[in-house]
Amino acid sequence: MIVFEEFEAKTGGRLDTLDITDEVRDTVTASGVRRRSVLVFSPHTTCCVIISTPGARMYEVLQQTMDAIAPDGDYYAHDDLDIRTENLVEDEPANAPAHIVHAFMGKTSECIPIIDGAAALGDGQRVLFVELDSSRPRRYCIQVLGE
Amino acid sequence: MIVFEEFEAKTGGRLDTLDITDEVRDTVTASGVRRRSVLVFSPHTTCCVIISTPGARMYEVLQQTMDAIAPDGDYYAHDDLDIRTENLVEDEPANAPAHIVHAFMGKTSECIPIIDGAAALGDGQRVLFVELDSSRPRRYCIQVLGE
Amino acid sequence: MIVFEEFEAKTGGRLDTLDITDEVRDTVTASGVRRRSVLVFSPHTTCCVIISTPGARMYEVLQQTMDAIAPDGDYYAHDDLDIRTENLVEDEPANAPAHIVHAFMGKTSECIPIIDGAAALGDGQRVLFVELDSSRPRRYCIQVLGE
Repeated sequence: MIVFEEFEAKTGGRLDTLDITDEVRDTVTASGVRRRSVLVFSPHTTCCVIISTPGARMYEVLQQTMDAIAPDGDYYAHDDLDIRTENLVEDEPANAPAHIVHAFMGKTSECIPIIDGAAALGDGQRVLFVELDSSRPRRYCIQVLGE
Repeated sequence: MIVFEEFEAKTGGRLDTLDITDEVRDTVTASGVRRRSVLVFSPHTTCCVIISTPGARMYEVLQQTMDAIAPDGDYYAHDDLDIRTENLVEDEPANAPAHIVHAFMGKTSECIPIIDGAAALGDGQRVLFVELDSSRPRRYCIQVLGE
Repeated sequence: MIVFEEFEAKTGGRLDTLDITDEVRDTVTASGVRRRSVLVFSPHTTCCVIISTPGARMYEVLQQTMDAIAPDGDYYAHDDLDIRTENLVEDEPANAPAHIVHAFMGKTSECIPIIDGAAALGDGQRVLFVELDSSRPRRYCIQVLGE
C-alpha cells in the first residue's frame, strides 16, 4: 500500500514554521496502514523538514543562530548578479543565507516508523516544515508506505 | 517483513555519544532480512542520529563547535521563563543550546541499505545516538524492512 | 522490486560537489519502478548527500561558512597525533574540519518519493554528493524500492 499526498500552503516569511504533524497523522490514519513508515519530503531548495519542538522561542533562537552563521547584511557572491552567471532565474532573489542555512539545517526528507497504525513520534516531537527564504506558496509531500 | 525494536539507555550527559552499530547489525541479522533497508529513529527532540566516526577527539571538536554556535552562558529567550509561556513542562530545563544544535546537527532518522543480509555501512561508519541535553533515560528505534 | 547500484568517482577536493541527479533518474528509469521511493546513501564518514542547488556561487558560500565554523588553521585535538590514540589509520590525515562539517551538514542518506516512474524532485532540486575532505576515490549508492 502506497499513499502519496501533496499539500499546499503559503508561508509567512523567513523561518516561518508550519506544524504539519496533524497532516502527517491524518494521512497515516486515512491510509489504514498499520505498520512500516511515513516519508515527509520538501520539494524546495530553500525549505526544510525538521522533527522538533515548535514555538515562538524556538523561532528566536533559530533566528539568532542564523544571524551568526549567515548574516543578512553580509556580501555573498551567490547574490552578486554583476559576477554571477549560473542558475539564474527571473527576478533572482538575494537569498544566499537561505541556501547556506538549508545546507546546514536542511533535511529534505525525514522518515518516521509507523507502529499500530500511527506515526511513532515521541513526546513533544512535531513535524515542522520551515521556510528559509521569504513568504511564498509552497508544497510538502507525505508518503505512507505499509500494510 | 518488518521488524521493529526499541532500545533503552541512560545517556551520560551532553554530547554523550552511544555507538549503537552493534544493535543495528544484530537486529538486521536476527530478522533474517537479506535486502532492502534499516531505519534508525530517535523519538526525542534533543537527541539525534549521526552516521560518523566515534571517539574522544570527535567529542572535543563537537563541543568546540557547539560552543561557537550556541554558547552555554548566552541569553536565550527560549530559556527565559519570565517571558516564555509556550510549551512549558514541569521543571523546564534551560536547554536552548540543545534545541539549537538539534536543528543544525539533528537528524531524527537515517536510513541504511541492507545488502546480502547486512547493513551496507562503509569503512569507519558507525551509527551514533547523540545526547544534546543532559544525562537521562532515552530510547532509540531500529526498524528493519525487507525480504 | 529492489535495485541497488553503486557508483565510483574521484572527487576534486574539499567541497567538490558531484551532481548525481542523472544517475538517480537513470537508475529509477532503468528499474521500471513506477512508485515508492529511492534512497541515496554515502558510505563515507566525510562525504554527504544534500538535495540543493549546485553552482560555483554555492561553493563559495559553503566555503565561507565552513571557514567560520571550522577554520583550517585552528588547533584540533582530533588531529593532534601526539595525544590521540583512538581510531588511527595509516597516514592519518588532518581532517577534523571535515568531520565537524559532516556532523553539521552531513546527511548520510536522503530518501525521495517516486511518482509515475520518476523521482519527485521539485524545481531546481538536484541530488549532490559533497566531498568534505580532500580529493580521493569515492563511492555512492542508489537504491530503488517499489513496484
